[in-house]
Amino acid sequence: MTLPARAQEPGTTTTIHTEGAGAVRRTVLPGGLRVITETMPTVRSAAFGIWSGVGSRDEAVPDAGASHYLEHVLFKGTRTRSALEISAAVDAVGGDLNAFTAKEYTCYYARVLDSDLPLAVDIVSDMVAESVNRPEDVEAERGVILEEIHMRDDDPGDLIHDEFAIALYGDTPLGRPILGTVDSINALSRERIHGYYREHYVPSNLVVSVAGNIDHDEVVRLVSRAFAGHLTGDAAPAAPRLNGAPAPVDPRTRVIDKDTEQAHIVLGAAGVSRTDERRFALGVLNAALGGGMSSRLFQEVREKRGLAYSVYSYTAQYADSGIFGVYAGCQPGKVEEVLSICRDEVGKVVGESLTEEELERGKGQLRGAMVLGLEDTGSRMSRIGKSELVYESLLPVEEVLARIEAVTLDDVRAIARDVLDAPQALTVIGPVGDRDFSA
Amino acid sequence: MTLPARAQEPGTTTTIHTEGAGAVRRTVLPGGLRVITETMPTVRSAAFGIWSGVGSRDEAVPDAGASHYLEHVLFKGTRTRSALEISAAVDAVGGDLNAFTAKEYTCYYARVLDSDLPLAVDIVSDMVAESVNRPEDVEAERGVILEEIHMRDDDPGDLIHDEFAIALYGDTPLGRPILGTVDSINALSRERIHGYYREHYVPSNLVVSVAGNIDHDEVVRLVSRAFAGHLTGDAAPAAPRLNGAPAPVDPRTRVIDKDTEQAHIVLGAAGVSRTDERRFALGVLNAALGGGMSSRLFQEVREKRGLAYSVYSYTAQYADSGIFGVYAGCQPGKVEEVLSICRDEVGKVVGESLTEEELERGKGQLRGAMVLGLEDTGSRMSRIGKSELVYESLLPVEEVLARIEAVTLDDVRAIARDVLDAPQALTVIGPVGDRDFSA
Repeated sequence: MTLPARAQEPGTTTTIHTEGAGAVRRTVLPGGLRVITETMPTVRSAAFGIWSGVGSRDEAVPDAGASHYLEHVLFKGTRTRSALEISAAVDAVGGDLNAFTAKEYTCYYARVLDSDLPLAVDIVSDMVAESVNRPEDVEAERGVILEEIHMRDDDPGDLIHDEFAIALYGDTPLGRPILGTVDSINALSRERIHGYYREHYVPSNLVVSVAGNIDHDEVVRLVSRAFAGHLTGDAAPAAPRLNGAPAPVDPRTRVIDKDTEQAHIVLGAAGVSRTDERRFALGVLNAALGGGMSSRLFQEVREKRGLAYSVYSYTAQYADSGIFGVYAGCQPGKVEEVLSICRDEVGKVVGESLTEEELERGKGQLRGAMVLGLEDTGSRMSRIGKSELVYESLLPVEEVLARIEAVTLDDVRAIARDVLDAPQALTVIGPVGDRDFSA
Repeated sequence: MTLPARAQEPGTTTTIHTEGAGAVRRTVLPGGLRVITETMPTVRSAAFGIWSGVGSRDEAVPDAGASHYLEHVLFKGTRTRSALEISAAVDAVGGDLNAFTAKEYTCYYARVLDSDLPLAVDIVSDMVAESVNRPEDVEAERGVILEEIHMRDDDPGDLIHDEFAIALYGDTPLGRPILGTVDSINALSRERIHGYYREHYVPSNLVVSVAGNIDHDEVVRLVSRAFAGHLTGDAAPAAPRLNGAPAPVDPRTRVIDKDTEQAHIVLGAAGVSRTDERRFALGVLNAALGGGMSSRLFQEVREKRGLAYSVYSYTAQYADSGIFGVYAGCQPGKVEEVLSICRDEVGKVVGESLTEEELERGKGQLRGAMVLGLEDTGSRMSRIGKSELVYESLLPVEEVLARIEAVTLDDVRAIARDVLDAPQALTVIGPVGDRDFSA
């Protein structure tokens, strides 16, 4: 069950592992383009994705928002297809064509019936490989992105997560919002967007990932044809994004006075990186503290006291850092009470860890959610594609389940101290004036 | 492929139809409790749902929000289980336990690994059949629901749909919001909530629906045991919710001046009911007008002019009415321009219908989305459960696909005139003062 070294020769295919009915295979094409597939013979659909190893944390300050802006522009047309031709082709077969930009990668994908896979490969590959980024299209899309920023600003439950990243990481690549700012979007030129495209959308920085009722060799043939003309040279695939030193954190309190009905709160600290062995213990801790309806935060804040509709904890992982956060939305007058309960509960798991029962329940929750979450082609495609970009190796599902199972109370106690007993950042959005929410 | 009459004897089982690998079967238990299942032998999970045929449109004015309030209270405990025991049992196996309330029904469901189905049946049935609705739990949950209302109020993209229902249907059962109002929630007593429960949560008004890797006879055994003590008498299942006369509409314009970044717009009219034969033509029209990225509204408002990030049309169906709506979020200063484009595009499909290409693309879009959407157990469970409550019969997927295929340009032209050439309601939320948005 261990995994092949990354140093795979272009033009060769490796079977990474088989699990369940399917197999995961990887082929490296000339130019360093990787194609990774997972067969799911019992479904009738396929999810086809192309991942670029670039995201908002790769942006210099004047480029803030460029990765996401470019993601939009790639839908606007290629050498041979207009924006309408791109979307019409996928709409005509009832497929789902979309994309998303994260801090460390960007993904374009289509989910289609298995018989429509050749179409999906054609369209998505053309968008990624042959985008023309016309000046007039970059201009029209600027307005769309400004509206996306305004929409985010109108939803405080969304806005608060962007504000919390600033509270935790400050004005750094991990702290700045994926969308950029109104100013940075207004300042980005077509030349800069196009240059960003030419720099980052090269075969060695791209991963094609496919899951569903598909055949690996056929996918490789289709992708080779769709990328024809680009698959030259002996470039090796880009190394996975792994950094030694943790990203700097500088936890602050940010209180944003805003005329909303609820106050929205995120309290949190730096978590663990994606490859940190302690991530499984943190996952169990997260499940028990705020991951479900039986969690301590849900019970204390919502079930017993009726103070919030939405209250939960969550984790996020990056190459060299991570977030552990607690969210709650409550009456503006109750922020102090809710914060005090959240801080108490965090303090208790640091001091006393979990009960045996919570440990087992947390493990069961992670296990079940993982297995249930991998029934659809989209999540399988994401798992293998993301892993290729940001992990040294793809852990088989059985291996992930075994690592979850191996978590002990001592592991949870240790990670609770490391993560929750550290300096905390706090963000509050609501009609709260300049109230002081320090502990 | 036609369907069995509703008049099925309690204690008997009918095979409704088989399609693909699975079969749909229905058993009527004593007391009129229906159990409907669909086998999906290639998955490893199961979705278990219990539907009550009651929703917000069944509420008298003083009960506004009672269906949804009760949905919350059912999670708070039974004769033998506390709220924590309910949620802990499902969290422990990584299942997903949730519920939702609509205008015409309420659904409680759990999605679990197939081996955990007995647990899911036990828990969800206990919640629905044995709820105690303790006064202190009703009190605690009042605060939660008020926070849910405030959260909705903080998200104008969500609020606008509730406001639009009022603009279209006025102060009527279909017009009033599912959540109720702050006043109605504050006024609802434990007695009223409990009475509502005893009135509507009787076996003859409940449907159990299950999809996944399951065995019908085993499900019937499990459900019979879980509902033991309730399955007596010879009550027949409640008739499906079908009304002859269309719900009254009274389209108005509602402009809500609010300090948001974007203006949020819904423009629309009465659509068609759930059983209206014209629903397939309206679906194709909706796909072409605003259902995807290749649709006219997306192309005109976003792709060509960059005026909005989010712009789409949608339909909703009820027993005796429906909605056809167009949503857009844009700069407050651009509302008139966006509205004018939307009205133009609506006018064009009324005057000229669609092109042949749009017709075919719209059909493909509905077909593909339907087939792709039925790969997961949750959507299959929903389809058969909802159908049992609100349709006279369950249309096999093949039959739905055939009806979509049969739609002609004349059908689309006719439905466009019937629906889009009717009086329109309009809702705008944003910093727009008292501007006049009439056409």
